[in-house]
Amino acid sequence: MPSVTPTTIKKVNAGFLTDATDILATEEPLELRLEYGPAGHRVVKSISVTMRTPGNDFELALGFLYSEGILLHGSDVVAIGYVKKDNENIVLASLRAGLAPAVANLERNFYTTSSCGVCGKASIEAIRTACPIPDTVDSIRVPVSTIYDLPDLLRTSQELFEDTGGLHACALFDTSGILLLSREDVGRHNALDKLTGAALQAGLLPLDHHVLMLSGRASFELVQKAIMAGIKIIAAVGAPSSLAAEMAEEWGITLIGFLRGRKFNIYSGAERILI
Amino acid sequence: MPSVTPTTIKKVNAGFLTDATDILATEEPLELRLEYGPAGHRVVKSISVTMRTPGNDFELALGFLYSEGILLHGSDVVAIGYVKKDNENIVLASLRAGLAPAVANLERNFYTTSSCGVCGKASIEAIRTACPIPDTVDSIRVPVSTIYDLPDLLRTSQELFEDTGGLHACALFDTSGILLLSREDVGRHNALDKLTGAALQAGLLPLDHHVLMLSGRASFELVQKAIMAGIKIIAAVGAPSSLAAEMAEEWGITLIGFLRGRKFNIYSGAERILI
Repeated sequence: MPSVTPTTIKKVNAGFLTDATDILATEEPLELRLEYGPAGHRVVKSISVTMRTPGNDFELALGFLYSEGILLHGSDVVAIGYVKKDNENIVLASLRAGLAPAVANLERNFYTTSSCGVCGKASIEAIRTACPIPDTVDSIRVPVSTIYDLPDLLRTSQELFEDTGGLHACALFDTSGILLLSREDVGRHNALDKLTGAALQAGLLPLDHHVLMLSGRASFELVQKAIMAGIKIIAAVGAPSSLAAEMAEEWGITLIGFLRGRKFNIYSGAERILI
Repeated sequence: MPSVTPTTIKKVNAGFLTDATDILATEEPLELRLEYGPAGHRVVKSISVTMRTPGNDFELALGFLYSEGILLHGSDVVAIGYVKKDNENIVLASLRAGLAPAVANLERNFYTTSSCGVCGKASIEAIRTACPIPDTVDSIRVPVSTIYDLPDLLRTSQELFEDTGGLHACALFDTSGILLLSREDVGRHNALDKLTGAALQAGLLPLDHHVLMLSGRASFELVQKAIMAGIKIIAAVGAPSSLAAEMAEEWGITLIGFLRGRKFNIYSGAERILI
């Protein structure tokens, strides 16, 4: 399915009306089904539906499963594909037979098909106690000049945004500011899941020597997903929410907001930025 | 609970670091529980969790229930309040005894705690057949000069955004461009639910003589919620998605995007704009 959809529109400009063509970001539902259980007793369960931009669908599924704590390694998924050849809106991921995902986690996923994420404070606690937060190092440092450059590098990588003006993006950089990966989606949580899934497939996880750049605001859910991927430094063009800042502080994450030009705010973990 | 949260930060500007105070948009979970069933056999079910900005919580709950087709009238809810005095993150809404919400609808709600909405194409069909779309008139017309003015009027109404830079907003206008209601939230779907809930409480529904203005992009879910509220004209500062445009076209809604200065795009229903 194409990631963009052309459409005919009418343009209004200072009182004049003209016919034109516009390119829209495609938005389509993606249902994720999970097959799991011991050999001979496999079950299939629908665990989430999200409105996403088609493209990198398997990365999206893998990244979602990883940030939910259902996967620890790429090899935990033995097969992934579309359920039907002619329908790219349903993905089936098969877990290896030895892996028994907690049913409670799966239930919780019904809440997390969203940009709104799981249940706030309760979830911060849940992450601490139940989820396999990766063992990560905490010694990375990044020069302030590298941070200044990130928004322009992110924008340059946003191919679809150029056409549509309607997509969120996120990108992964190393500490010298080299762009490693970037992904786009109508849903910012999907963009990050795609990035995490791609990193998982590339064997890059945990991402504890990297900087995550977000094209928009930093919500609780995005910080949560970043933590699950091992990220230590998050930089956003927009504002963080209260809960995003609180969670970053609690987990020792460096959280940067309002990154524009040579200005930004540091909400926590300022020691990692060399000024 | 306050809608904004002050926090101490470090500001970086061209290589200089200073301590400062910043105001964040509060993000907290809101769980919605529904009490329903015949007298003597009432049941309570948790139907959604959303990450929202505290404030107008009962409007949010009512607007969500309305746009899900669970309510038809404000009087369908006989009581609404916080479950505990010291916890404003759980709201209980009691339906009148005669009202039996479809369990299937309630199940579906697990998907719709999100900005991603329900399951795309299937849901367009579901809305047509199962939901009580309001009987609305289709004769409204709006002068192009009124449309030009909407973004500035919306921005003026965004009290919290001024402080935080981190909130979505939506506003309701009459056809002469008079601002009737506006609401803000970290989640754009929540902002619209709050607006719909406020309109429901004010006896304004269906909103078929009004214009809905959105501060950001127009997603499928926002168009869906607008249709449920009877809206005929939607104007957004940002881009629509493919599915948003498709749904607006199918339902005969006027959808405007990229509304900035004296320019905008009309994706469907151009006949309602007088140029």
